Amino acid sequence: MLILVANLGSTSFKYRLFEISDDCKVGDIHNARCLARGGVERIGDAQSPCKVEIGDWKDERTLTVPDHGVAVQACLDQLTDPDHGVLKSASEVAAIGFKAVHGGRISGVFRVDDTVLDAMAEMNAAAPAHNPPYIAAMKTLQQRFPDLPLVAAFETDFHQTVPAARREYAIPRQWADEFHVRKWGFHGASHRYISVRSAELLQRDDARVISCHLGGSSSLTAIDSGKSVMTTMGMTPQTGLPQNNRVGDFDPFALPLIMQRTGLSLEETLAQLASKGGLLGLSQSSGDIRDLHEGAAQGNESCQLALDVYVQEIRRHMGGMMVALGRVDAIVFTGGIGENDDAIRSAVCSGLEGFGIDVDTAANGSGKGEFAFHSPESRTALWVIPTNEEVIVASQCVQVLQQDGAN
Amino acid sequence: MLILVANLGSTSFKYRLFEISDDCKVGDIHNARCLARGGVERIGDAQSPCKVEIGDWKDERTLTVPDHGVAVQACLDQLTDPDHGVLKSASEVAAIGFKAVHGGRISGVFRVDDTVLDAMAEMNAAAPAHNPPYIAAMKTLQQRFPDLPLVAAFETDFHQTVPAARREYAIPRQWADEFHVRKWGFHGASHRYISVRSAELLQRDDARVISCHLGGSSSLTAIDSGKSVMTTMGMTPQTGLPQNNRVGDFDPFALPLIMQRTGLSLEETLAQLASKGGLLGLSQSSGDIRDLHEGAAQGNESCQLALDVYVQEIRRHMGGMMVALGRVDAIVFTGGIGENDDAIRSAVCSGLEGFGIDVDTAANGSGKGEFAFHSPESRTALWVIPTNEEVIVASQCVQVLQQDGAN
Repeated sequence: MLILVANLGSTSFKYRLFEISDDCKVGDIHNARCLARGGVERIGDAQSPCKVEIGDWKDERTLTVPDHGVAVQACLDQLTDPDHGVLKSASEVAAIGFKAVHGGRISGVFRVDDTVLDAMAEMNAAAPAHNPPYIAAMKTLQQRFPDLPLVAAFETDFHQTVPAARREYAIPRQWADEFHVRKWGFHGASHRYISVRSAELLQRDDARVISCHLGGSSSLTAIDSGKSVMTTMGMTPQTGLPQNNRVGDFDPFALPLIMQRTGLSLEETLAQLASKGGLLGLSQSSGDIRDLHEGAAQGNESCQLALDVYVQEIRRHMGGMMVALGRVDAIVFTGGIGENDDAIRSAVCSGLEGFGIDVDTAANGSGKGEFAFHSPESRTALWVIPTNEEVIVASQCVQVLQQDGAN
Repeated sequence: MLILVANLGSTSFKYRLFEISDDCKVGDIHNARCLARGGVERIGDAQSPCKVEIGDWKDERTLTVPDHGVAVQACLDQLTDPDHGVLKSASEVAAIGFKAVHGGRISGVFRVDDTVLDAMAEMNAAAPAHNPPYIAAMKTLQQRFPDLPLVAAFETDFHQTVPAARREYAIPRQWADEFHVRKWGFHGASHRYISVRSAELLQRDDARVISCHLGGSSSLTAIDSGKSVMTTMGMTPQTGLPQNNRVGDFDPFALPLIMQRTGLSLEETLAQLASKGGLLGLSQSSGDIRDLHEGAAQGNESCQLALDVYVQEIRRHMGGMMVALGRVDAIVFTGGIGENDDAIRSAVCSGLEGFGIDVDTAANGSGKGEFAFHSPESRTALWVIPTNEEVIVASQCVQVLQQDGAN
């Protein structure tokens, strides 16, 4: 069947179109073929570029795209292009799959309906940058394509196996039980891909792996026998590691003092922490790790500090996961930074020979794509594995459609 | 000289009186002799018990003690008791030393003056349970004993050596630079004592040690060559490990959702997190670890969860410190839980043989006072060391008085 996997921004719609077997299981990463990729940017502007790549054919059109419904229609128009398209008709698409962020009481993979949308809306306060645009876009698509199933694959899904002792906050129980305040974790599709692929590479089903998804948004997950047993993000995607412009772990009891001194409201203070914090806040100049390397090389101390805090926080969380796992078969780096930044990888892994982690510096510096970079002495394998969240979501969509068909 | 080291609560005053050599250096733990201990409870009530122990002599008087000034006078009266007292005159006391909590921009050891009191007052919002009663008591004592030096030894002092990369939050720099929002760390006197004593036991100055201060209030500190290089508490003593009734690490972005659902203000929500959270919040019954063991043994799942979260959080932070140190010569347990709870110690250290940490179960179960409990195979020494914060504060007082004399 054909599954279109969407990546939604508030003013963008990107996708990949997969051909995937009807009996594909979740996490079957070798059973899907990407037929096309494309998307629309600057939705809502007068001029919205609409791109597609199908094999060697690349097409870009500039249209007026007022909302995500029109954006999807424009993409389907390109995919059904009579000369180059891969679809005869838009109706060949079996479902659109979404990496939905926060469903609170709902975590898993679901056909999008009012129950799912309501559960997401309940979490708007916890994921203000993510949930509202998803809900709006999903509603628009429901209206415009009433016969096209929409599937929400929540980013929290993979972390449902985290044991209670690493999932619960030390808060009044009512807040956990009734308001669903717990460590949910995110980046589930990416960590699930790493889980599957690293088990293949290690050739063992009981692999214990630390998956480091490092990019504009970063999180670490400890995986034991294919299951998430610990992750760095918490109730919201704002905790854990520092992000490009989001704070990461922070002391809530500092808020009254900051509000007192700045005159900001709680909402404004949190908005600052979620947009002017992270690497941007530390460096005072950029949240892009490439800019920080450049600045640090030129002697900018704030850029160096941002890099140092980022590395130390990754190491701190990685250490917690080493202890949680007891034995670490592999540490895997993925995401934009994890895949491309050998300096960060080297800094994260340095000085840990005593714990069985030993870098092959040459391999780390020269590897491309999927590669190992541990020394022969290393007890822990070190890998770069480019992630593929979309293939995971495609496989999750198939499962939901299968269940629907069976019901 | 004679130093009275105070331990202040909002309605209590406890102390130890030390005889200490005039040239004692900070952290010289073998140069002070405790002559007496005692204190007053229920200050402000009609009936306040006032106790003292001097050698074999124990005395308890019930008095009306309206404030901390009267409390100190009552203690001095017992210490100058003509038959059993250790002082001829109260003027023999060279200083009263305090473990002051949060001085924000001021961290170190200081004679209490208006500058110190102002700096503490600036941090009232960050340490609402600690700073206001200290400030009130210090002002009362200044008035009542104008000739008696008061010395504030801030709990943050020992952590001034933590490098910036493990000290700074990923927040807008102005908040760090102008409002002193950073990871300050606390329990400095206790971790300093462990640092000194563990270096003696290991017979090396470059020892790398993880100090686990576990009690009603808990924190871990990584020590390298006598210096704190990482600690679990942050801007305030509410972050880090879960405490008896305080939350520990928590996601600030969960606050709007909790406030929305409960109708509580930010101040009320934080107050709940700081008084109804921690082990109490998790267990819904008690913040006392002994009660939790009892409840768990009887099958109470909430008590078991509280124990499990506590242990997992200690292990998580311990792992971060293992990576920060690269090599761990010793893990030391201290504080009420650390010294007395072999089940918690065992759970914290279990399953880490691959990282060189191996418990001698018999030694762990039977040891008393100061003892080791690692197996012969363990690369990391495991110790219980009863802490002695007061002897550290006494040595800090001597240093301040010496500096004053030299000026």
